[in-house]
Amino acid sequence: MTTGRAEPARLAVLVSGRGSNLQAILDACARGELAGLARVEAVISDNPRAQALDRARAAGVPMVYLLARSSFRRREEYDRALDELLEHLHPDLVCLAGYMRLVAPATVARWRGRMLNIHPALLPAFPGLHAQRQALEYGVRVSGCTVHLVDEGMDTGPILLQEAVPVYPDDTEDTLAARILQVEHRLYPAAIRLILTRRWRLEGRKVIFEESDEG
Amino acid sequence: MTTGRAEPARLAVLVSGRGSNLQAILDACARGELAGLARVEAVISDNPRAQALDRARAAGVPMVYLLARSSFRRREEYDRALDELLEHLHPDLVCLAGYMRLVAPATVARWRGRMLNIHPALLPAFPGLHAQRQALEYGVRVSGCTVHLVDEGMDTGPILLQEAVPVYPDDTEDTLAARILQVEHRLYPAAIRLILTRRWRLEGRKVIFEESDEG
Repeated sequence: MTTGRAEPARLAVLVSGRGSNLQAILDACARGELAGLARVEAVISDNPRAQALDRARAAGVPMVYLLARSSFRRREEYDRALDELLEHLHPDLVCLAGYMRLVAPATVARWRGRMLNIHPALLPAFPGLHAQRQALEYGVRVSGCTVHLVDEGMDTGPILLQEAVPVYPDDTEDTLAARILQVEHRLYPAAIRLILTRRWRLEGRKVIFEESDEG
Repeated sequence: MTTGRAEPARLAVLVSGRGSNLQAILDACARGELAGLARVEAVISDNPRAQALDRARAAGVPMVYLLARSSFRRREEYDRALDELLEHLHPDLVCLAGYMRLVAPATVARWRGRMLNIHPALLPAFPGLHAQRQALEYGVRVSGCTVHLVDEGMDTGPILLQEAVPVYPDDTEDTLAARILQVEHRLYPAAIRLILTRRWRLEGRKVIFEESDEG
């Protein structure tokens, strides 16, 4: 993908919870660094109680989907429904934003290089759930967040951007999460902008951005 | 340990190579943030060709020991010699500075809480050899260095200090190592100062420093 597109890139955002990263993306599209460059076309939640659904509706996202995990008898049926929905929507990018499930390998393969995730740690440290708690229990002095391309593993895909934050002696899971979240809200739109405006390639598992088209 | 000691703390530094972290510690003791607080009493190398040996002699370190690995028939004999040497020296702290061997469990146990190591990555990411190469191959955007207490594992002990550095797209192992090394030279003396001047305790594997005695 390169700059100079006539239409903003169409994003589908997958959510499960509060949706603060969705909000950051919505804000960046409306009046931030993604203005004119991207818009959120669809929000998909696997959780009927996700506050993210309210945020999507409030922002006037054209398509808001609930694929409640409990509506599907088997994991495979849910996975197929999500895969078909994404095929149907055919967004330019799929952004996981607090989406609490592993995406099925077939879907990952179909969206390889066009599916992003954000994780509240400096990967490869502390993948998986409760990354901030893991970091505190390990006793690190520095943590941060990572935006990466999604692959078949749990938070193992090629890294687009990372930023560090300090961990303080009196941090709790909540205070550390809040400090990281502030950075997340800046880093996710920046990573989306990067992937939409710069040519890139993989060398091994390293993302190499070529010279900017933006000058 | 607390401040107010009459004599500077006596450090034993274990080395295998170039000794740039040894030099940083020597400089900090001579005229930096460890002045009056610590002095390097002994340097021990397992490598006869370590440039660190020359640095130790040039700085007038009172005791410079070579325990050449090749002089010992078996690993266990080397381990025992090192253990006995440390017992004999009875330093206040043992600092591993580019020491390329795992310390035997019995020696680790004897010096628990008084043996430090520095590692050129943000642990728990990229333990072991060639940490900078590991980081580049993983494709991280942030790395750094860690000073930690030594335990029985490979770079797994409780963390004292960490600091992040950026990783740039055109970094080589050498340029990243040089950027991290600059921080190492500042961080290791700072960690030695911390452990010499602040009361601390472990909570799980987390190092908790109590209020400063320095005011």
